[in-house]
Amino acid sequence: MTGAAVPTAILGTSGYIGQHFARLLADHPEFAEPILGAGRTSTGRTLGDVWQLAEPPPPSLAERRLVALTPAELSRRGVKLVFSALPSGTAGRLEEAIVRRGISVFSNAADHRMDAGVPLLVPEVNGAHLALAARRARGRGLLVTNPNCSAAGLAVALAPVVPWLRPRAIHVTTYQSLSGAGYPGVPSLAIADNIVPYIPEEEEKLERETSRILGRLRDGRVAGLGVPVVAHCARVATREGHLEAVTLEATRRPTVAEIDGAWRSFDPLARDALPTAPHPPIELRRETDRPQPVRDRWAGSPSRARGMAVVVGRVRWTPPYLRFFVLSHNAVRGGAGGSVLNAELAARRGVLARGPG
Amino acid sequence: MTGAAVPTAILGTSGYIGQHFARLLADHPEFAEPILGAGRTSTGRTLGDVWQLAEPPPPSLAERRLVALTPAELSRRGVKLVFSALPSGTAGRLEEAIVRRGISVFSNAADHRMDAGVPLLVPEVNGAHLALAARRARGRGLLVTNPNCSAAGLAVALAPVVPWLRPRAIHVTTYQSLSGAGYPGVPSLAIADNIVPYIPEEEEKLERETSRILGRLRDGRVAGLGVPVVAHCARVATREGHLEAVTLEATRRPTVAEIDGAWRSFDPLARDALPTAPHPPIELRRETDRPQPVRDRWAGSPSRARGMAVVVGRVRWTPPYLRFFVLSHNAVRGGAGGSVLNAELAARRGVLARGPG
Amino acid sequence: MTGAAVPTAILGTSGYIGQHFARLLADHPEFAEPILGAGRTSTGRTLGDVWQLAEPPPPSLAERRLVALTPAELSRRGVKLVFSALPSGTAGRLEEAIVRRGISVFSNAADHRMDAGVPLLVPEVNGAHLALAARRARGRGLLVTNPNCSAAGLAVALAPVVPWLRPRAIHVTTYQSLSGAGYPGVPSLAIADNIVPYIPEEEEKLERETSRILGRLRDGRVAGLGVPVVAHCARVATREGHLEAVTLEATRRPTVAEIDGAWRSFDPLARDALPTAPHPPIELRRETDRPQPVRDRWAGSPSRARGMAVVVGRVRWTPPYLRFFVLSHNAVRGGAGGSVLNAELAARRGVLARGPG
Amino acid sequence: MTGAAVPTAILGTSGYIGQHFARLLADHPEFAEPILGAGRTSTGRTLGDVWQLAEPPPPSLAERRLVALTPAELSRRGVKLVFSALPSGTAGRLEEAIVRRGISVFSNAADHRMDAGVPLLVPEVNGAHLALAARRARGRGLLVTNPNCSAAGLAVALAPVVPWLRPRAIHVTTYQSLSGAGYPGVPSLAIADNIVPYIPEEEEKLERETSRILGRLRDGRVAGLGVPVVAHCARVATREGHLEAVTLEATRRPTVAEIDGAWRSFDPLARDALPTAPHPPIELRRETDRPQPVRDRWAGSPSRARGMAVVVGRVRWTPPYLRFFVLSHNAVRGGAGGSVLNAELAARRGVLARGPG
Repeated sequence: MTGAAVPTAILGTSGYIGQHFARLLADHPEFAEPILGAGRTSTGRTLGDVWQLAEPPPPSLAERRLVALTPAELSRRGVKLVFSALPSGTAGRLEEAIVRRGISVFSNAADHRMDAGVPLLVPEVNGAHLALAARRARGRGLLVTNPNCSAAGLAVALAPVVPWLRPRAIHVTTYQSLSGAGYPGVPSLAIADNIVPYIPEEEEKLERETSRILGRLRDGRVAGLGVPVVAHCARVATREGHLEAVTLEATRRPTVAEIDGAWRSFDPLARDALPTAPHPPIELRRETDRPQPVRDRWAGSPSRARGMAVVVGRVRWTPPYLRFFVLSHNAVRGGAGGSVLNAELAARRGVLARGPG
Repeated sequence: MTGAAVPTAILGTSGYIGQHFARLLADHPEFAEPILGAGRTSTGRTLGDVWQLAEPPPPSLAERRLVALTPAELSRRGVKLVFSALPSGTAGRLEEAIVRRGISVFSNAADHRMDAGVPLLVPEVNGAHLALAARRARGRGLLVTNPNCSAAGLAVALAPVVPWLRPRAIHVTTYQSLSGAGYPGVPSLAIADNIVPYIPEEEEKLERETSRILGRLRDGRVAGLGVPVVAHCARVATREGHLEAVTLEATRRPTVAEIDGAWRSFDPLARDALPTAPHPPIELRRETDRPQPVRDRWAGSPSRARGMAVVVGRVRWTPPYLRFFVLSHNAVRGGAGGSVLNAELAARRGVLARGPG
Repeated sequence: MTGAAVPTAILGTSGYIGQHFARLLADHPEFAEPILGAGRTSTGRTLGDVWQLAEPPPPSLAERRLVALTPAELSRRGVKLVFSALPSGTAGRLEEAIVRRGISVFSNAADHRMDAGVPLLVPEVNGAHLALAARRARGRGLLVTNPNCSAAGLAVALAPVVPWLRPRAIHVTTYQSLSGAGYPGVPSLAIADNIVPYIPEEEEKLERETSRILGRLRDGRVAGLGVPVVAHCARVATREGHLEAVTLEATRRPTVAEIDGAWRSFDPLARDALPTAPHPPIELRRETDRPQPVRDRWAGSPSRARGMAVVVGRVRWTPPYLRFFVLSHNAVRGGAGGSVLNAELAARRGVLARGPG
Repeated sequence: MTGAAVPTAILGTSGYIGQHFARLLADHPEFAEPILGAGRTSTGRTLGDVWQLAEPPPPSLAERRLVALTPAELSRRGVKLVFSALPSGTAGRLEEAIVRRGISVFSNAADHRMDAGVPLLVPEVNGAHLALAARRARGRGLLVTNPNCSAAGLAVALAPVVPWLRPRAIHVTTYQSLSGAGYPGVPSLAIADNIVPYIPEEEEKLERETSRILGRLRDGRVAGLGVPVVAHCARVATREGHLEAVTLEATRRPTVAEIDGAWRSFDPLARDALPTAPHPPIELRRETDRPQPVRDRWAGSPSRARGMAVVVGRVRWTPPYLRFFVLSHNAVRGGAGGSVLNAELAARRGVLARGPG
């Protein structure tokens, strides 16, 4: 990984997560500028043509054209690293075919997240799960997934405090932003002045993924956390940033200082120098009314890690109940940024280049 | 029209305007409860199943199933009166075929609005234009259109004052609500915390339709107003009600009292007892900050005429410029309600029943 | 209560809840048209002048002037029934002084809600608690409170199912609308495209009031429910209607049919013919994505009871967890409508007229 | 201005514009870090305590305390340059008193904008008007104002094309964002799902200031443009960025290419190297649906000039009417950034240091 950047491609560039991949990879210090893959309706157009994010497209990629990228075409172009923003459902088979060609795939799609041999990775929380992918047969690329947009921030917030509290149950209720549904997403008339208390499959994903991320690797398999995660998921009319109200029913009684300290001292990647890792990964706010989407969704420093920090606030410890709110950027920490960080971790751990070349 | 109600159908019931037709016709005193026509994806479902308006579906129609309605089927069922909420583009031919069967069509679609022989009708403004339709060959049904959602309210607001001011030009800038785009309409991410300063074809429609509605019938044709209408149209994130900022450059100098009086005394349908006609049709507000969508979109009394009144406010007369804001409900005055009122006028004028039967 | 209507007044008419009182009492079949009390900044103005609700002011009261109403003035005018929309904090003393004059007070203020001798009343849930007020010394008026806007709907939704589930804990997370903060309320810049995960004192009120409403009257005192209510409260940018995500951890295992049946058959006021009581009080929705503020906030029939029904949906029974969403109109069921219904119940029970007269 | 940075202060730091001043001056290359002045309710608190912008407070100033700053205190501290975010009405006298002490004031307040001897300055448009200030008596500081938030962007957009079109009239209708009203500003219930077609004094300011900015300096006075500016101003529920629909009735007939070229080649400050000047100052968009608040409000490069560019789009030239939309950031180009740029221009022109020192 030193010297030459890794040849890279994005699949599904024209979508909301795909555009965030393009934004994050446009000038990445370790990965090459990506080839931009897209489906039939977008190939031939430039990234600038299809761009829909509020911020302008990255200048270095704005004029680049989107192309059709089959597994064979990826091989032909010598790509070693693929970021997948394909829609769940169609992503699975294609990602599998790419991996078989010795190309590593870091995917935002849900299809393989619960596969026994595929890490559902959040580097600060379960970096060790990367070993799952590395065990797979030689000649294959890595297949690593990032969690659902509502699970990623929750898992980061829970990781430091779960060992102190040994919860009996974890209750979570979400306030999820419009961008979590991508483009075209939610019709404006469905959500203006409104809340929709249902997101298809979301509660199931949030519950099972949180349990898996926080689970332990034992005998080459992940054993889930073993604590019920009880979720309500709703869509609200904010643009970006998922807010979640969390209650842990604890079986232990640490002090408030111990709980705060667990969050404040949490920085497992402190020494890894991953470009997209925020330090600290959790920002603990003391104000009475934070976190808030408008003010906290872009949390994270250094600047390359904007949107990667998880903001925790309104901590109330009334034993046995620990309550707090957590906010994270659904498309960055909970999407493209998660997979970019996963790839950086794989690169740093030296497992990225296990392909045939 | 006395005694038996007119057999009636709605085309395009599953859409936003179609649902407003269903709401307005569910218990209409003069027209029969409508047969609910719909396209392939909705036939077989009940009105309740497809319902998307904020208010609940009319109880008398909620369990009724949507059916496919070809011109032949309409004849077979003895329908004499059709309200068309078909999408512009596909509406035109079908409406023509229906009219040839002696069935009258009152349409919200744009296709025939500018046809020389088709009235673009706003009863309070140009009721005389109904004669256009009545001139057409015997054996045919009437074909009458209501204007674009942004033109209807503007035309009503202009009608009383144009003769006093003889404007040299009419400038109008719109703040159009989400429901003007129907379902699924504008994606929420495109409009949340945003304004979109473009609505396809809207400025052209607003300009030419306003001119036609305010034009005179001469020798069997409508001569446009002959004054430039200069429009800007933009979409804002309100649910319902189109607000418009209007400036007339006047060539005359009436007093403020004369202008106010023109608006206040305007009620051309005062004696017609049309069920859906609001009295007065224009509500003139004296507050500094009205009209507003949230407070004024349902203006209109009696209760059957809710959403049919046009609200004018912030009148400023700084000669030669008369400025005001006008608000009207895009789906009622500017949509389904407009065509229902048109049909009521035709019935009262005795021209509705000129079909073959 | 037959024959002559009860002389009535509203305190705090110029505020958001006060205006809802005016709306509900303008043509009430059992209570006289209210005298409109207000503080110094509003006295002398008409109700129409201060009106801020989206719907127009009631015609019969729009031109009536707001007046200063001291306890002495209320006595002088022969008022027997007062609805208090005074702000919590200043309400308490004044309400107490009025009651001592033999005038009954139905209050939306928080000050006396937890007083041992004051009912915190939701007629469908704990109508028997009215006895608390009736026990007080003769010569005094009744003092009856309605709950906090977030507690009223929750209590109604819980009442039928708590006996079936015997919950170990009740978790509730709210999505509270802007109008819950009254006027001027939340600054728009604080909430546009945002969520504020904090409402002062709200979680405490929601927890203790829910417990008290669902508690039993024993020996002239209310014993709370004895189950922890664990709340998160947040403000979202909807205009009206509080949505709440509720999880009960059950100790019993009824069937889904039993739970549904408990909600569907719930109508304790079925025979009382109270004008403002909705029948049924709970609307159970089967759609996957209801209740929603825009579509369900005005639930309730007959028309006088609009906004009084509580809408329950997305019921998921995964033992031991029962999850659902509940929506109610914060200013109607959770405010003015609650107190009007309380007064109607007191009138029907014959305890309203226990004053000195 | 070379070597040592100019001692600087902000008045009214705790308000919305004041905070933008703090953000822009926190690490300014030519002016010293500002002393933060504030009114009684905020003195003693830190900038971080009062911070309300979405982005975090500048780290270098977050812990600095707000202080009371009288004219005498400013002198005592050796301040030479004051940025005033005081509310219009109270600003005028205080600014005058400060100037008399030889301290230069760059003000966002309206009080002195129309004074004959005070420049209403937009550097790209009327930099020559700075001479007005320089003529004033020796020993006094400069007093320079920036325009109203709705006038600044409009003036920039008009400057290049007015000479080509020689308009007979300029029509402008605004869609102004919430932040234009500062804190606490518009109550959320007044604007959610709504538009308010009135902003006190706004149309008057927009009309007279636009005329003055585009006017010529003759014999030591500014002669207005001499063309009627006819405005409608309304508030919409966007957070930041004022959008305006503009129509010029032209007396000349340039080609589209000439009009586009006038905008594209406009960069009067190209050689001045002012830190906050955007290059180009006008971004001309060719898309059918731009400018939009969410996507264009932060236009401007280099990064220090973010929010200073004016974005023009939807240009339609249908002689005699030229129509377009223009968007600018109300708090940056139309507020704090405007005055910072004004001060940079004064510094570069060498007139900033004409004080007693």
